[in-house]
Amino acid sequence: MTGAAGRATRADGDVGASARATAAPGADAAAGAAMRVAIVGAGAVGCYYGGMLARAGVPVTLVGRPQHVQAIQRDGLRITTASFDEQVRVQASTDPAAVAGAALVLVCVKSPDTEVTGRELAPHLAPGARVLSLQNGVDNAARLQAVLGRPVAPAVVYVASEMGGAGHVRHMGRGELVIPSDIGTASSTRVAESADGAIGAPANAAAALDATRAPVPPADAGLASADVVALFARAGVPVELSDNVLGALWGKLLLNCGYNAISAITDLPYGRMAALPGVARTVHEAVVECLAVAAAMGVDIPGDVWAAVDRIAVSMPGQVSSTCQDLRRGKPTEIDHLNGYVVREGDRLGIPVPLNRALHALVKALEAKAAA
Amino acid sequence: MTGAAGRATRADGDVGASARATAAPGADAAAGAAMRVAIVGAGAVGCYYGGMLARAGVPVTLVGRPQHVQAIQRDGLRITTASFDEQVRVQASTDPAAVAGAALVLVCVKSPDTEVTGRELAPHLAPGARVLSLQNGVDNAARLQAVLGRPVAPAVVYVASEMGGAGHVRHMGRGELVIPSDIGTASSTRVAESADGAIGAPANAAAALDATRAPVPPADAGLASADVVALFARAGVPVELSDNVLGALWGKLLLNCGYNAISAITDLPYGRMAALPGVARTVHEAVVECLAVAAAMGVDIPGDVWAAVDRIAVSMPGQVSSTCQDLRRGKPTEIDHLNGYVVREGDRLGIPVPLNRALHALVKALEAKAAA
Repeated sequence: MTGAAGRATRADGDVGASARATAAPGADAAAGAAMRVAIVGAGAVGCYYGGMLARAGVPVTLVGRPQHVQAIQRDGLRITTASFDEQVRVQASTDPAAVAGAALVLVCVKSPDTEVTGRELAPHLAPGARVLSLQNGVDNAARLQAVLGRPVAPAVVYVASEMGGAGHVRHMGRGELVIPSDIGTASSTRVAESADGAIGAPANAAAALDATRAPVPPADAGLASADVVALFARAGVPVELSDNVLGALWGKLLLNCGYNAISAITDLPYGRMAALPGVARTVHEAVVECLAVAAAMGVDIPGDVWAAVDRIAVSMPGQVSSTCQDLRRGKPTEIDHLNGYVVREGDRLGIPVPLNRALHALVKALEAKAAA
Repeated sequence: MTGAAGRATRADGDVGASARATAAPGADAAAGAAMRVAIVGAGAVGCYYGGMLARAGVPVTLVGRPQHVQAIQRDGLRITTASFDEQVRVQASTDPAAVAGAALVLVCVKSPDTEVTGRELAPHLAPGARVLSLQNGVDNAARLQAVLGRPVAPAVVYVASEMGGAGHVRHMGRGELVIPSDIGTASSTRVAESADGAIGAPANAAAALDATRAPVPPADAGLASADVVALFARAGVPVELSDNVLGALWGKLLLNCGYNAISAITDLPYGRMAALPGVARTVHEAVVECLAVAAAMGVDIPGDVWAAVDRIAVSMPGQVSSTCQDLRRGKPTEIDHLNGYVVREGDRLGIPVPLNRALHALVKALEAKAAA
């Protein structure tokens, strides 16, 4: 499920690109066409962003499972959107070593696969490679960072897309990203301590976007936030910079905790699900528990939470949750990193989370049955 | 699901029968063989108790749906237990008017059918007929009483039985009943006010069972509690008298609220269900909400609640809940009268019941899908 929080995007790609004219190694590449982007995880998120970048002429390597990789190698990556339906040429590989030359690595695997993916990638990442986590949940960047021993920046992904078959991604709506305004500095993730993260002066969003000022250089070699903005701007993908990505991730987590499990348990899309007696209130009560945990963790969630919660059923009435889709396919869900995460943190902090525990336990039960 | 609370039964049938030698009209019949018992609802509970009474020579009329009635009229009622497997001759009818001559009417329909059943029975009940509700939930006697305009006594049913096919009931364990020590007096149900209930001196269990004393006569004509004990004793069915049947009904309700919905949602028997991570704690947390509602209602639940809760998964590991069975068959469940009842009362009294609300809402969603 994607978040529904409406937000103004500030994707002034040209500005970002020119602002980096004198900066870190990746900047030169960003200005030209040579900088390679590796996408790890060729699912609905990875294929959408990888495909959009490749379509704009950015060299892209997709690393994924054989099913999609073989189709992409043979026919290209098919992207279907409201405005076009194209086969896009993209390098694709099942080998994690294919990330070797990339200046930017977008990790788009499912939350349960984060650690395994990190261990596979670690030996192959270029020294200056910038790693971004485009995943659900709030702790993937921290978990990946712990495995990689280098900074990983979280991104909040607002896109509705799905795989329509092998090597075929279908875009249903939105597509914007929110990333930290200071990627490359230790403070950028705010979600974990990294022993290797050098502390630098954080570049704020305004500075990064102000072409008349020299940007504050990141603390390590590699792309800065504005470079990422510029890169995606070439592909028409809006990227917002934020000093509170963790809060935005939590904003999405709340929605996921409220809707995903119930959609999965009832096997119903959001609209029909929310119209059933007691369900909307249960969604609210699950979110209330999440907010209590977030407050205890000191997380400040931006925007109008309740408006966002209520909007889901209205804006995506026909959509079933990703958790529901996973159960239907007999695949592992991300529920351990959605309601399950809230339960673990709630228990750790002494915040009651009975409803999230129940939703988590019920989905786990159905997951075990679906896999059996 | 049946309750698992172990309890000493006091089924001194002879005592009860002799104690009634000079009393109300039903008493003479109880001493002989002519008193007729009507069972309304030919499901697993109705067929078990009706069959046991008929097997002991008590004249029994079963009122039920055509499927079972036709089989019983043709072949008798088949009762399979650990100790015997017999075809028992029982009168059976689909017509509610068949209750006309009965001195005792045992209502064994599912909770959602209580009002409809009451309206069908009302014109046909004999003036002195004693009505007992052998149903799940805690408010069926009160609801039936409101429709009938006469006292209805609640019974707590502890039996594991199921229909094995048309006209075939299978007994898996237990079978005892708990009824009020003072049926026939307005105070017997304690669960609702009845405008028609005459106020009499309540007969307590000790008095009813003490053959050396004249029993306190009930306030209206009809069987007294001890007569019911005596009647069932002929069939080897233990009946305990209690001054706190409502508390015992709540004791069963707690178990139902903890287990039924989760077994139904996961489609799992109690043993496998309770072994899953988070489930046992969720069961406990649902029961905690129920206990808060019971406390606010002034209900005193007898026995060790938590021992009873934990025993279910151990004593009935292979059993799925009745709610689960109903969903599997696409039939309406009783969930509105289990978790749904707790939610309504919790909301009325201002007691938070988020977990019971969620479990109720999820089962209702699955019920709607199963029926579709």
